[in-house]
Amino acid sequence: MTEMTTSGTDLNRLRELNSLSVVRALRGNPPSTVTELAARTGLSRPSTDVMAQGLVADGWATVVEPSGNSTVGRPARRYRFRADAGHVLGVDVGGHKILAIISDLDGTVVHSTRRAVTLDADPTTRLAAMDAVIANCLRGAGMVPDDIWAVTVGVTGPVDTTGRTTLFTPLPGWTSVNPAKHLGARFAAPIVVENDCKLAAAAERWQGVAQDADDIVYLLAGMRTGAGLIIDGTLRRGYGGAAGEIGALRAVRWLDAPSHLQNCPGVPDSVDADNAAAWVFAAAREGDRHARTAVRRYVRDLAVGAAALVLTLDPQIVVVGGGYSRSADILLDPLGRELERLCLRVPEIRASTLGDESVALGALRLALDEVDSRLFGTGLSAPLAPRRQ
Amino acid sequence: MTEMTTSGTDLNRLRELNSLSVVRALRGNPPSTVTELAARTGLSRPSTDVMAQGLVADGWATVVEPSGNSTVGRPARRYRFRADAGHVLGVDVGGHKILAIISDLDGTVVHSTRRAVTLDADPTTRLAAMDAVIANCLRGAGMVPDDIWAVTVGVTGPVDTTGRTTLFTPLPGWTSVNPAKHLGARFAAPIVVENDCKLAAAAERWQGVAQDADDIVYLLAGMRTGAGLIIDGTLRRGYGGAAGEIGALRAVRWLDAPSHLQNCPGVPDSVDADNAAAWVFAAAREGDRHARTAVRRYVRDLAVGAAALVLTLDPQIVVVGGGYSRSADILLDPLGRELERLCLRVPEIRASTLGDESVALGALRLALDEVDSRLFGTGLSAPLAPRRQ
Repeated sequence: MTEMTTSGTDLNRLRELNSLSVVRALRGNPPSTVTELAARTGLSRPSTDVMAQGLVADGWATVVEPSGNSTVGRPARRYRFRADAGHVLGVDVGGHKILAIISDLDGTVVHSTRRAVTLDADPTTRLAAMDAVIANCLRGAGMVPDDIWAVTVGVTGPVDTTGRTTLFTPLPGWTSVNPAKHLGARFAAPIVVENDCKLAAAAERWQGVAQDADDIVYLLAGMRTGAGLIIDGTLRRGYGGAAGEIGALRAVRWLDAPSHLQNCPGVPDSVDADNAAAWVFAAAREGDRHARTAVRRYVRDLAVGAAALVLTLDPQIVVVGGGYSRSADILLDPLGRELERLCLRVPEIRASTLGDESVALGALRLALDEVDSRLFGTGLSAPLAPRRQ
Repeated sequence: MTEMTTSGTDLNRLRELNSLSVVRALRGNPPSTVTELAARTGLSRPSTDVMAQGLVADGWATVVEPSGNSTVGRPARRYRFRADAGHVLGVDVGGHKILAIISDLDGTVVHSTRRAVTLDADPTTRLAAMDAVIANCLRGAGMVPDDIWAVTVGVTGPVDTTGRTTLFTPLPGWTSVNPAKHLGARFAAPIVVENDCKLAAAAERWQGVAQDADDIVYLLAGMRTGAGLIIDGTLRRGYGGAAGEIGALRAVRWLDAPSHLQNCPGVPDSVDADNAAAWVFAAAREGDRHARTAVRRYVRDLAVGAAALVLTLDPQIVVVGGGYSRSADILLDPLGRELERLCLRVPEIRASTLGDESVALGALRLALDEVDSRLFGTGLSAPLAPRRQ
């Protein structure tokens, strides 16, 4: 230790940065001793000790007392990040379902609630279903709206800078809806609205098959075809929120791609439109000639738009998600062959394993990011829910 | 000023960061007083003074003595960043020309040299021309290779992680060339090889028409069609260096787009292939029916690939560069109309004004970035040329 003269302002800034370093060293780790925290932060042991005690006083950390069965000397106390200091809410407002999930600050799910809606539900019906699902999810978690520190809502269609889907959405009447404003009547916390494909991409990198990658093209392969892009580890929205909307270009053939499956000859009348593709995939597996042709044509069209994304971005991996990804066993190989034919360099192709929770999980991730940037971005205050401006 | 006790390591780190802050506050500004530097950095005046004197001692800054014609009190001395402490070299190895430019650390051009080459030149001939142009440029600047702190070479075709164009390049035999290895025999400084469209995009953001934008699609419109992408202020290479290669996808119609101009009926035999498009643009301006049709068809094809990029990335602006951008007066409006038809949200479209120096200028920018990241990235040492590992 050396004694030096410097200005108080500089040192206060340094202390705040160091306190943040200790929080970051605590989060996502098992309970840690001061020695372990000092090693992770590069700070001196005495400084780390002061910072850790300050975090306990502020409510960001708790002390885990030693179990006491050590026989040599006094065992070290450990500090644990208080993930339950706050919670976030992720909501998926889809064509066929509403799904709400509440997690703590570590992303551990506390409660989730879902309800089916019909694709042709009007905005009033869909908003009422969303409100009911959120209310039930809060009740199930034993919480009130003020316990939620950030809300993210996933919707279908590109989300503009006002949080609305004014450019386009397949949900009837939904272009006139402002979900953030609607929820703002009940929640005081920050509310973010985001496109479903983008959220699914974020979920894949957080908890799915893309955790090891920074450059990811996520393909939504289902009754609709869409994309979400992660470049250099960051989810890309585009200047006006419309990144990933390559499917709007007729030349890349996504608009009609699912129709090969929907209109496949031989689908029994008893199978409705929502389940036609699943029937075709099953029939193709069993060697049905029409079904195999339909799958081949679907993959050939899907591959043109996928190739446009791959050639534009040259990603590390392509993740295939959405309803059809349950049939990845017969989709991924032919998709890879088509991309070999169309692209200069073919990335690895993986199937999503997050199922139909991916959008809501991605919404949780964005809500956690919002909390992180407000609470752990530049300074550190006591744990209090952020408030919108 | 308060006296406080803290560890020497923490303070050394703080001092190094503060020294970097002062360098950043000096660069790109007119000679500055300590008061001005303190205001820009947020550091205390005494700390700033110590840092500035240290930078002079290290060779990063010079003192500009007051002119002495002030009548009240002693006029303040000013500090200036020593941009001539080092220099960088940018080289454009194109199909038709080699262009080398040397600049100082502020990017001010010291000397440039160019030489024409033929499109069908073999690799040996093209490398020899490159060597001669670089040697002449150094001589013209009164420098030797060791005066150069970083070299960037622009080439045609996607550049892989080894700095070679193994995937594809229109330059005959060039896939087998390793320009960085070739130049490594003469230069000890870091050598980066990069794709020409990507460098042109970087140049537009640095000194061209895209200085105010962070999300940019650069279109090379010429005898070849290509793209360079800047997302969130960063030039995007892609995982394997092949980002922006949408033109390889036949469905977006870039491969044949220029042929509408090249094969336009009525081009006189006296006009060679390199100048056919310029003739067609001129004829179209004068109302020639065939020429107007050719331009319309060219724009319609160019727009499909451009729309694929716009729909994928949703950029703030599209910059049209390359040889044909000299005819932006008759290209930009119809291109905008096509994009309106094809895209969800149409970005602003601007014509490049950097002419055929854009690739070499972008090479300078990347070389300066290399110097910045090595010298001003995390620490600060005396001004010495970086060396490859």
